[in-house]
Amino acid sequence: MRKQFRELAGLDEALEVLEQLSIEPTVEQVDLEAAHGRILAISIDAQIDVPGFDRSIMDGYAVKAADTVGAYDDDPVELIYAGKIVPGERPELEVATGEAAEIATGAVIPAGADAVVKVEDTARSDGLVSIYRPSAPQEYTMARGADIAAGDVVLRAGMHLDARRIGLLAAIGVDTVPVTERPSVGIISTGSEIIRPTEQNRLEPGEIFDINTFSLSSAIEDAGAIAEIYPHAEDDYEVIRDTFEQAATACDLVVSSGSTSASEEDVVYRIVEDAGELLLHGIAVKPGKPTVFGSIDGTPVLGMPGNPISALMNFRLFVSPILREALGIRGGGVQTVEATVALDMDSVGGRTQLSPVGLVEDPERGLLAYPVDKGSGAITSLADADGYLTIPADVHYVAAGTTEQITTLDEQVSYPEVLLCGDPCPVLERAVEGVDTDLRWLDSGGIDGLRKLRDGIADVAAIAVPQSTRADYELEGVETVLTYQRELGWVTKSTRRDEELFTDGATVVTLPRQTGVSNWLNALAEEHGWDLEIQDRPSTEGCVRAVDTGEVNGAFVVRAAIDETGRSFESVGWDTLELVVAESRRDKPGVTRFIEMVKHELESGTSGITHDE
Amino acid sequence: MRKQFRELAGLDEALEVLEQLSIEPTVEQVDLEAAHGRILAISIDAQIDVPGFDRSIMDGYAVKAADTVGAYDDDPVELIYAGKIVPGERPELEVATGEAAEIATGAVIPAGADAVVKVEDTARSDGLVSIYRPSAPQEYTMARGADIAAGDVVLRAGMHLDARRIGLLAAIGVDTVPVTERPSVGIISTGSEIIRPTEQNRLEPGEIFDINTFSLSSAIEDAGAIAEIYPHAEDDYEVIRDTFEQAATACDLVVSSGSTSASEEDVVYRIVEDAGELLLHGIAVKPGKPTVFGSIDGTPVLGMPGNPISALMNFRLFVSPILREALGIRGGGVQTVEATVALDMDSVGGRTQLSPVGLVEDPERGLLAYPVDKGSGAITSLADADGYLTIPADVHYVAAGTTEQITTLDEQVSYPEVLLCGDPCPVLERAVEGVDTDLRWLDSGGIDGLRKLRDGIADVAAIAVPQSTRADYELEGVETVLTYQRELGWVTKSTRRDEELFTDGATVVTLPRQTGVSNWLNALAEEHGWDLEIQDRPSTEGCVRAVDTGEVNGAFVVRAAIDETGRSFESVGWDTLELVVAESRRDKPGVTRFIEMVKHELESGTSGITHDE
Repeated sequence: MRKQFRELAGLDEALEVLEQLSIEPTVEQVDLEAAHGRILAISIDAQIDVPGFDRSIMDGYAVKAADTVGAYDDDPVELIYAGKIVPGERPELEVATGEAAEIATGAVIPAGADAVVKVEDTARSDGLVSIYRPSAPQEYTMARGADIAAGDVVLRAGMHLDARRIGLLAAIGVDTVPVTERPSVGIISTGSEIIRPTEQNRLEPGEIFDINTFSLSSAIEDAGAIAEIYPHAEDDYEVIRDTFEQAATACDLVVSSGSTSASEEDVVYRIVEDAGELLLHGIAVKPGKPTVFGSIDGTPVLGMPGNPISALMNFRLFVSPILREALGIRGGGVQTVEATVALDMDSVGGRTQLSPVGLVEDPERGLLAYPVDKGSGAITSLADADGYLTIPADVHYVAAGTTEQITTLDEQVSYPEVLLCGDPCPVLERAVEGVDTDLRWLDSGGIDGLRKLRDGIADVAAIAVPQSTRADYELEGVETVLTYQRELGWVTKSTRRDEELFTDGATVVTLPRQTGVSNWLNALAEEHGWDLEIQDRPSTEGCVRAVDTGEVNGAFVVRAAIDETGRSFESVGWDTLELVVAESRRDKPGVTRFIEMVKHELESGTSGITHDE
Repeated sequence: MRKQFRELAGLDEALEVLEQLSIEPTVEQVDLEAAHGRILAISIDAQIDVPGFDRSIMDGYAVKAADTVGAYDDDPVELIYAGKIVPGERPELEVATGEAAEIATGAVIPAGADAVVKVEDTARSDGLVSIYRPSAPQEYTMARGADIAAGDVVLRAGMHLDARRIGLLAAIGVDTVPVTERPSVGIISTGSEIIRPTEQNRLEPGEIFDINTFSLSSAIEDAGAIAEIYPHAEDDYEVIRDTFEQAATACDLVVSSGSTSASEEDVVYRIVEDAGELLLHGIAVKPGKPTVFGSIDGTPVLGMPGNPISALMNFRLFVSPILREALGIRGGGVQTVEATVALDMDSVGGRTQLSPVGLVEDPERGLLAYPVDKGSGAITSLADADGYLTIPADVHYVAAGTTEQITTLDEQVSYPEVLLCGDPCPVLERAVEGVDTDLRWLDSGGIDGLRKLRDGIADVAAIAVPQSTRADYELEGVETVLTYQRELGWVTKSTRRDEELFTDGATVVTLPRQTGVSNWLNALAEEHGWDLEIQDRPSTEGCVRAVDTGEVNGAFVVRAAIDETGRSFESVGWDTLELVVAESRRDKPGVTRFIEMVKHELESGTSGITHDE
């Protein structure tokens, strides 16, 4: 018996329901040294004036300004040296008419004086001070309370206590700080196929590692709350219910992942219904439909979908605002950043669509958002997306060039310095390893690299496709900055020569279509008239394994990728790759550095690699 | 005897010297749960394929695609039910021609099957499954390794481990993570006038609270390092030297503040010279000249200026890059953000100038940077600046409208949602207390508010200046969104009426010039022909204190500011304030919310406040 979602709540409705699940902030006092990173619970008024006295802001002489009238470079006023005032002491001396007292920056202006003359504008010999410039009353002094006056509101409730604000608190003598308590969030994972890598590090067929417990606990800590990880609950109703009830008792909020849909095995909504109050089950959001809101024992419970990117997007959408409220953070809800949509983006419509996007900085067009669509459940979206675009249910299409708010997947806006697209290449991979840039490499093939250059998305593309193919993409404003070669050939189990092996209906394997390696093999087979069945595997390692298991007769790979395995390799030829850069990105600091460093790494590298500019 | 800086190093030269002070990253293994927020020390290759098996990405039936050819809505293909496969189990069954096996999302595709038909496109009765749509090979399946293939580089050395990346590590079964060790940074404060608020919370005249120890330790923790605070060293050479030597032995880096200039009392450069190696003393940077670079026992030592904003700017400029390197963070140096300079900014030239700026978002013009110049040593710059503009030594002038890179004072880009300028007002202050926005209030008077509106800096201004004055500012594109009143009058020690008190050369006090209260008093005195000496104090509290000490005869203040003190107050009249908003900012989400909430707070408030739109 399958239970269907009775009625999906719209996103607005879901956000309204969410308001019932708010957590009131509570206050605790912490030492100033421990207040960093916390949220101020109560606005702080200064109890003292800063400075607490009229002070000198220069090294020099405290004087009566009236005494310096008429002082000039070649006709100084001479005053009598009245002593010295150092910072930290209450001056005993008083400056009388005709006198000057030596004073250091930060020291108290002595009684009688109303100005400071900079040391550069004075000279001293014996008991006399020569003043070479007239001074005005209050010059080079700061009045008591001029910086902060007692009674001023120095920091407001809800502020994040960063370095600057901690400094302000110190300035007014605050040694314990009222901050909001960090809410505790219980994390529950469900599903019999889910294995925690921290408990067991080998998988049986059918099993997958638990991602959400760890990504959600990180997100919770980033949001300023405390993550409490509960033991993994498989699919036993009683065990899971017990875990939920324990977490609801101990924590301020419970977040689960998985088992939220309506199938027989998906128990989260039933548990919330049975043990507490189910407020909502199923939201018209794609992805993220299987979401559960409710409470157990008065503690809010939010069930996130099992799909890791959905879980994280729903976290930003629903959990983050609750935590912000619990922490008493003022202002805005989720963190967003404005970006220009780089490509037309479609939506199914009828449901709010959350479309993962990557972000890249274009010096002329500003921040660009490009779609990251790796297909359902792909966890590499976690690596390749920086945020998501929310497309309302009644919008079917967002045109390229539109400016949109992108919700970030991290608590902070964060995207790579350099976006490299194009062909996967172990030679380049090795070079990139030593390069000091924050890099994203989308290595889905040379054609994809050409496309991303054309669309103004890629900073740099690694291209191993023939000029004839390149011509189809009508690339403008691009420049080849580097060319290098890599050796291609066969890995086989036997020692037979390739002509014998691959002429007679053999099965071979290489990297996926659209990679340079696959293009080479196809061209080779055509040239020689070989009758081959060509399979593909996502990685060189997968190709070699297919040889070892006997699934295929040989694997066509890049030498550099198998060099370290010590396998024998039968060379077929050398392939040429180019690094092509979009001219508009040529001067991005990261791109400039990246190109220089890759050149350097390839030059100092081994494996017979050659390159030129 | 004063020692002058012998030769100031240019900024570029200082950055070169800094390269000698780098700290090599070291590696430690931490549990996956503890890896959040750390920096990956070594690139991680996947050891497994993800998924580790061909999996279903839908709930439905696993079939041979060839068996579904010709299936239509009104003419289904009928297949024999072959059993059920749930996630997490290795399927025992095999799908033969003419069969279909029930399969859940995430479950292993059984032998014999090569596609999945969605449950929506099927019906089942007894032992038969009706298929209403033809399926293609591989449809609704994800091949082993299609998401991540064994051998793929999943994360690169130098990456910050955020929620997404922790999720990726979990996905490939990583349970201990090689991260860079957090460098330890010893913090030393110097100066006999400096008091740690954590040790003593009252100041004697001449003393000030220690700010830098706390702001620097926060900045160090934000940067991912560990701050070790050393006991405050006053001005005794031996004690300070001892502290430096201890810190240099125990920590990876030593950062001090204060005592870095060349005066007799400023010992830091001498200690570094005597106990270790002095590499640099004095940099041609304004502010920030008194900076010391060196090493003791091979440990880098950086002496920052005592001025808190200089110390923090120099931290970003010099200490941050060392910490980033020690942590193995890839890419860029300091955190910068692009902004348009809102006002012309001058520089003295000859030295690199670091000019503190605030940041404000303009929906049309993007991020704007406006100068924050509070004068030498003002610590409220810490509250009001978000970053600084670096003006090279040979540039004297940066024109409004120029796009520049602003270095942020925080590790992350951070600026307020709403920038409120204009008149200080306790009534508004009270209303703002309950408003859920991240607000900055620059309350330097109505004229300043008008100026900042005119210059396109302020989002909202609180204005209590006459229309005639306003006209001078030729404001365009602004709108008054709210008007309210506040009561003004006298606080005195005696009970005499104001006419008697203030007609005969009396001395009175009020808030600084350009505030609405001061304007009112001046107009009042002129109207009545009073012969008054009018002083000012930075706060109402200061004004009232001047009455109590007998320095003045009366204080002219806003009633709401003294209401809670229970003092008697002689009303003189009601002043009108307007909240004026720049139309271009009217739709900024924070501004909209701010205006609504201030209205609500003023409406529900007390003190006879009236307002209308």
